[in-house]
Amino acid sequence: MAKRLLPTLNRVLIEKIVPPSKTSGGILLPEKLNKLNSGKVVAVGPGARDRDGKLIPVSVKEGDTVLLPEYGGATVNLGEKEYHLYRDDDILGTLHD
Amino acid sequence: MAKRLLPTLNRVLIEKIVPPSKTSGGILLPEKLNKLNSGKVVAVGPGARDRDGKLIPVSVKEGDTVLLPEYGGATVNLGEKEYHLYRDDDILGTLHD
Amino acid sequence: MAKRLLPTLNRVLIEKIVPPSKTSGGILLPEKLNKLNSGKVVAVGPGARDRDGKLIPVSVKEGDTVLLPEYGGATVNLGEKEYHLYRDDDILGTLHD
Amino acid sequence: MAKRLLPTLNRVLIEKIVPPSKTSGGILLPEKLNKLNSGKVVAVGPGARDRDGKLIPVSVKEGDTVLLPEYGGATVNLGEKEYHLYRDDDILGTLHD
Amino acid sequence: MAKRLLPTLNRVLIEKIVPPSKTSGGILLPEKLNKLNSGKVVAVGPGARDRDGKLIPVSVKEGDTVLLPEYGGATVNLGEKEYHLYRDDDILGTLHD
Amino acid sequence: MAKRLLPTLNRVLIEKIVPPSKTSGGILLPEKLNKLNSGKVVAVGPGARDRDGKLIPVSVKEGDTVLLPEYGGATVNLGEKEYHLYRDDDILGTLHD
Amino acid sequence: MAKRLLPTLNRVLIEKIVPPSKTSGGILLPEKLNKLNSGKVVAVGPGARDRDGKLIPVSVKEGDTVLLPEYGGATVNLGEKEYHLYRDDDILGTLHD
Repeated sequence: MAKRLLPTLNRVLIEKIVPPSKTSGGILLPEKLNKLNSGKVVAVGPGARDRDGKLIPVSVKEGDTVLLPEYGGATVNLGEKEYHLYRDDDILGTLHD
Repeated sequence: MAKRLLPTLNRVLIEKIVPPSKTSGGILLPEKLNKLNSGKVVAVGPGARDRDGKLIPVSVKEGDTVLLPEYGGATVNLGEKEYHLYRDDDILGTLHD
Repeated sequence: MAKRLLPTLNRVLIEKIVPPSKTSGGILLPEKLNKLNSGKVVAVGPGARDRDGKLIPVSVKEGDTVLLPEYGGATVNLGEKEYHLYRDDDILGTLHD
Repeated sequence: MAKRLLPTLNRVLIEKIVPPSKTSGGILLPEKLNKLNSGKVVAVGPGARDRDGKLIPVSVKEGDTVLLPEYGGATVNLGEKEYHLYRDDDILGTLHD
Repeated sequence: MAKRLLPTLNRVLIEKIVPPSKTSGGILLPEKLNKLNSGKVVAVGPGARDRDGKLIPVSVKEGDTVLLPEYGGATVNLGEKEYHLYRDDDILGTLHD
Repeated sequence: MAKRLLPTLNRVLIEKIVPPSKTSGGILLPEKLNKLNSGKVVAVGPGARDRDGKLIPVSVKEGDTVLLPEYGGATVNLGEKEYHLYRDDDILGTLHD
Repeated sequence: MAKRLLPTLNRVLIEKIVPPSKTSGGILLPEKLNKLNSGKVVAVGPGARDRDGKLIPVSVKEGDTVLLPEYGGATVNLGEKEYHLYRDDDILGTLHD
């Protein structure tokens, strides 16, 4: 049975986006187009605390598509799915069409 | 005779959850499902102090099921049971059904 | 399909300027003149947060031509173009004619 | 002649508790039960100073039984007894029956 | 075509002073007299930001002759001239006749 | 001619106490009793400055007998005597009979 | 022509005192008496800035005789004389007869 994870502090739970290696028509895509390391935000923590104990809200929100750094992040297996935990400030940006 | 430990600062005393390797019906579970490194919060400290000496309360509470980092934590034997001490900010998140 | 990236915090998205190796008249330029590591600012984040959680605005803006450090920066491929992400305080200066 | 030590800052003077290796009836105890690294607080310093120069009181007090980290602490010989000095924040918790 | 560089933060653009190896009368100068690592300030940034986001002005100004540290600084080629970028606090002092 | 040293900041000038290796009656003392690394405070600095530039007074005073760490401290020869300089927060405690 | 150096921040310009190896009567002095690493303060900077941008004045002044650390300091040649630059907080104390 899959459990739900609520991240602590400024941690962000990410489901990585596996880029399609073929187009919908079956044509193989060149590797360069697949290289973007991105993911979907599944859950965010309440934020880190500043030096006065106040919460600094996380800069991304559930549902955002984000650009991830090449290294870092902790792998978490919930049920049969693999997720990754990143600190908010390790997320490089949000991706938009 | 078992002693009771009250953690200092933002330390959290954890009893690790040993995942069942078989279902209740005796079927062996695949290793992937067992890999979640989780524990039950047994006791929490009063919190770390911010730069003005005020206590920052710990973000988890007794009874919470938490996701733990792969490394870190200090092993503590109280009576015949093994516990682990983590800093509050090393706990990755809380787990819910 | 190319995606648009909105950088987080004080990150700056840069498109590097490839210096021409020949003049418009076809004369080869000496290598020394080509060595300036510069780029065009494509997008900037909202700024890093100071110790009170307030945003410190980024010191460069979209369209600026900037001098980049020799090392550092993360490569990002969006569509068929290569971009680079730098922290605002790693940018050495702005270039003007 | 034994001297008395008043620790500075947030230092805590500890007399380690040597666990009995036999019960009072003479039965050898298994090693696991002996492993708890604990001590008695003999003296505490006035506390460390925060960034405004105010004293942050030490979180343990004379007479407390405390759980100590596996490593660290400075050995001090006063008279014929061996003591250990720890920083307040290195003490893992207080032990209660 | 030479570009003009406006340094960011507390960066200072320096044109190094090459000490004459002969006097104006053609006499070779001993090496010891040449060893002073100095430069002319060409441009200064607006200053670094303190923890409240306020600018701390740079301590040297355009036209100052400054003593530079033996190591450090980034080389920048603008047009056909070589310049060096230093952080304000790496500059050792100002030189006066 | 011996000079007098006024330490800067939170530095403390110490004259180490060489423990007697014999009692006044000539009996050799066991080495364990000699091991205490202690000294007499000869002079103290005005204190370190906190982040607002205010002086934080040194916690020991001239004439105190102090317990010193096993390592650290700078040796200073004034006249024919050897002294040691320690930072106030490296002093482990004050010793009292 | 000798230049004058005004140190930046909390830097202090020092002319080292070379201890006489003989008395004025020509008697060789034992090495121990010569070992004191001291200097004369030639110029001081305006002070480092605290976190609010205010200047923290330097704790030594022109003309002071100071005790220097065994290592550190940058050598500066002005005219034919050798000087040394130290940070104010690296100076161990002031020496008085």
